[in-house]
Amino acid sequence: MFITLEGIEGSGKTTQIEAIACFLKENGHDVVTTREPGATSTGKKIRSILLDPKNTAISPLCELMLYGADRAQHIQEIILPALKSGKIVLCDRFADATTAYQGFGRGLDMALIDSIYKIAAKELKPDLTILFDLDPSIGLKRTFKALDNGERQLSESRFEQEHLDFHNRVRNGYLAIAQKERERFFVVDASCSKEDILKQIISEIMIRHNNNYQEYKI
Amino acid sequence: MFITLEGIEGSGKTTQIEAIACFLKENGHDVVTTREPGATSTGKKIRSILLDPKNTAISPLCELMLYGADRAQHIQEIILPALKSGKIVLCDRFADATTAYQGFGRGLDMALIDSIYKIAAKELKPDLTILFDLDPSIGLKRTFKALDNGERQLSESRFEQEHLDFHNRVRNGYLAIAQKERERFFVVDASCSKEDILKQIISEIMIRHNNNYQEYKI
Repeated sequence: MFITLEGIEGSGKTTQIEAIACFLKENGHDVVTTREPGATSTGKKIRSILLDPKNTAISPLCELMLYGADRAQHIQEIILPALKSGKIVLCDRFADATTAYQGFGRGLDMALIDSIYKIAAKELKPDLTILFDLDPSIGLKRTFKALDNGERQLSESRFEQEHLDFHNRVRNGYLAIAQKERERFFVVDASCSKEDILKQIISEIMIRHNNNYQEYKI
Repeated sequence: MFITLEGIEGSGKTTQIEAIACFLKENGHDVVTTREPGATSTGKKIRSILLDPKNTAISPLCELMLYGADRAQHIQEIILPALKSGKIVLCDRFADATTAYQGFGRGLDMALIDSIYKIAAKELKPDLTILFDLDPSIGLKRTFKALDNGERQLSESRFEQEHLDFHNRVRNGYLAIAQKERERFFVVDASCSKEDILKQIISEIMIRHNNNYQEYKI
């Protein structure tokens, strides 16, 4: 089962992924947690190009192809081997992030994004995508708070330097993808408590995994 | 005018590009010399991933997309602005290198290579491609000789570590592309003297540039 977690900065997906993995492991599943970009050793080098705040001259098309390169390596080296051996793969951001950030956020051609995705991933799609939906003004506050002790400073990531309207476009983009692919998406209200969100997600995974929820310890 | 230089390792194109640029500048042309991969600051970081001999786990598809990312940035940042301002662009390796090395050399799907090229370069094609044709056994000897004082050692580039049969496939691939696109290609015998090769190339550029060869100082 291939599960991806999506959402804007500060939506809490990175915190939840470990809790989900922990629960699934305790219930006898083999789990691999991974992320994009930067899961492989080649990907880490690509990630450092993508997220370097000094790389302001990078063209949107170059950026898109770097995400594609990272994804191609990630799928071949980590995701596919894990899925083939029966593991559950939990991935912090995947292709929907490219559509939301580069497409809805930066206005890149959607057909171009789609063609690069198909080159990198071929037929692979997540079985379940959990969207952590949150007002960007709350998400960005959380992100800044986590980075320093109250004093505002620029985040290390280029994306977090973007303006609020960009993050609003990304949020609405994510919601538009979720609306279009209702079967695949599960949208959680990321302003709820961590415990509530985890329960909702576990419940949804159990339903999708065709297992009886009662069999699981929570 | 967009001119690309292609050929296997040790074929002498990197030596000739400076001599060609020098001649053209002396004859009043604005010239930009550039190369792939690694002409831009982002490209340099991509190049270091591509040519690192330790990156043995890199997948052919990831590699292809990294070349695409480098090319997209290169075209937007350097090649197109130079061409638009009327300069002659001399580029040490371009898209034919991807077709020859990844396609003919490594056996990657040609349609895939072509689709990534079209994403990165759109309609841009060189006006003239100079192919430095050489027996790979001579080319590799030259490369090794340039690297050390007679003692054989591994080159810093991953590609130069490949076996001779790989380089033979690359050479034959280049010749196949040249055969298919006769209008665009000018094939030189890279075993000739440097002076002879330079004269042949200059003469060909002049013909293509619709200038009278006699007007030029050589």
